Amino acid sequence: MKAIFLKERGKPPVLAQYADPKPSGAGQALVKVLACSLNHRDLWILKGKYPGVKPPVVLGSDLVGMWNGKRVVVQPGINWGPNPEVQSKNYHILGVPHDGAFADLVLVPSSNVFEAPSHLTDEEAAALPLAGITAYRVLFTKCAIKSGERILITGAGGGVALTCVQFALAAGLEVWVTSGSDEKIEKAKKLGASGGVNYRNQDWSEALARTADKFDVIIDSAGGDGFQRLLSLAAPAARIGIYGGGMGVINGVSPQILFWKQLKIFGSTMGTNAEFEDMLRFVSEHKLNPVVDSVWNKEDFEKAFDRMENAEQFGKIVLRWV
Amino acid sequence: MKAIFLKERGKPPVLAQYADPKPSGAGQALVKVLACSLNHRDLWILKGKYPGVKPPVVLGSDLVGMWNGKRVVVQPGINWGPNPEVQSKNYHILGVPHDGAFADLVLVPSSNVFEAPSHLTDEEAAALPLAGITAYRVLFTKCAIKSGERILITGAGGGVALTCVQFALAAGLEVWVTSGSDEKIEKAKKLGASGGVNYRNQDWSEALARTADKFDVIIDSAGGDGFQRLLSLAAPAARIGIYGGGMGVINGVSPQILFWKQLKIFGSTMGTNAEFEDMLRFVSEHKLNPVVDSVWNKEDFEKAFDRMENAEQFGKIVLRWV
Repeated sequence: MKAIFLKERGKPPVLAQYADPKPSGAGQALVKVLACSLNHRDLWILKGKYPGVKPPVVLGSDLVGMWNGKRVVVQPGINWGPNPEVQSKNYHILGVPHDGAFADLVLVPSSNVFEAPSHLTDEEAAALPLAGITAYRVLFTKCAIKSGERILITGAGGGVALTCVQFALAAGLEVWVTSGSDEKIEKAKKLGASGGVNYRNQDWSEALARTADKFDVIIDSAGGDGFQRLLSLAAPAARIGIYGGGMGVINGVSPQILFWKQLKIFGSTMGTNAEFEDMLRFVSEHKLNPVVDSVWNKEDFEKAFDRMENAEQFGKIVLRWV
Repeated sequence: MKAIFLKERGKPPVLAQYADPKPSGAGQALVKVLACSLNHRDLWILKGKYPGVKPPVVLGSDLVGMWNGKRVVVQPGINWGPNPEVQSKNYHILGVPHDGAFADLVLVPSSNVFEAPSHLTDEEAAALPLAGITAYRVLFTKCAIKSGERILITGAGGGVALTCVQFALAAGLEVWVTSGSDEKIEKAKKLGASGGVNYRNQDWSEALARTADKFDVIIDSAGGDGFQRLLSLAAPAARIGIYGGGMGVINGVSPQILFWKQLKIFGSTMGTNAEFEDMLRFVSEHKLNPVVDSVWNKEDFEKAFDRMENAEQFGKIVLRWV
């Protein structure tokens, strides 16, 4: 089969022939891929920032494909285990350390395979799984968002952040965003966000406090030195969900703000199969369409990666596979 | 009446005559004080670290006394308000900005007055309210501790921390502590703790990881640069409660540890009247006796404050009032 894979450590990935996956027992599904989407995780793997990468290995966590005559999406978190609170030691995400989604055929546990929401195009369905499950768990399971609340979502433009924007709007929240790009803020407003600020402006948090009042929920994937400002923007008893840390370690957090405001901070990553099913139902019920930034033929995967590397995207970058 | 109060800004407190409190309406209780206890809060007020201190004002948040022929304790958190998640804007703690507990007579809302557990001495009852409500909320309401779990409590020696040790043991947890004093660790072990480490040793967290495995719950009142080590000691899906921040701002927190371990961090302070009532019931049911470090006559209050200032205490420092 054809696949995009790491051939040698430290070398760029290639699109070339790769050994077909071989089902080794019951409970497995061999999915024929229609389209895939990129995640920051793929970039970090390319940069050698993930442990346990042993070439050759097929990249990719997100796909839509065909199985048993049905169009399906794959929950990319495999072997979550029995405790809904946290993934087991056997847990891994599709695509490194085991072969992933950017291939003609993908072998996964059949319990991870779900019918794709029928209102989605292939490209939209390919954009949904990883961002959808991450957004769903951090918003609903962890932060328990409620209609009428005010939520701040940082880094709008990224796949998970935009999915959070869409899910929160569908759940009846007032949504605000931050971004490093004024253009992306305008796009978020077109999706339904009430407003946003550019975090490249030094006084972004003061500006936000002036226009938006305090936030009942804050969803962050940056961390870094900016995180402490989020605590000032938090309303009393606010919940803060963290699903990423692109800006590195968090400094300057005041314990006094944490305890006096009775704040709750939830680390969250991925989600269970049950949450994945709930997420698909939510997307179907609200007829949500994942934001697709751009669609590339698989042969142009390097350009697609460059676009993500340069943070140019608004929404998910999709690879058309067939 | 006699009271310990701040007479002038920036001057040490005095024990002298003070105007009797005057009940101004229904729903108030005038409690005749039997004994009081000190809190770090009193020290911070003396040091001018609390906003809104306007002399003259009577110090103190903890007391046992007589009201309507019954021996009572006072929930020191006043006007919590309608939302159990967080205190209202009208909320204040007994003793600054309004007159507090170190006096012959204390005027409080009668809804804040509860019969003292009958198995406690006056000194023990005086030691309970603020530490008890703080420990109860952070352990039970916020961190939802469960029998059989392993818990780490930092800074054992302080009133709240030791109350956490006692409550967690009574709830069936395996308790470990940190302290800056080997002697206090030994005392905590006599209370039932499984062990502890001295945080003045540079490798305290590694030593703890070697002997105690990971913690399901961690209760911290230090913050500061040591906080990041607590995250390494946290088990997957651990809950971390923060009720103080004696070591200042928290630095060096890894977002990746937070989200990959699915950690939950809860800021917590004080508690509602309902939690106070639950706490008293818990103390009565388990026949718990607050740890009294030392008892001083009210005339010796300066020595009592010195003892707290020098962090010499193990448990609560009590002032015998009558």
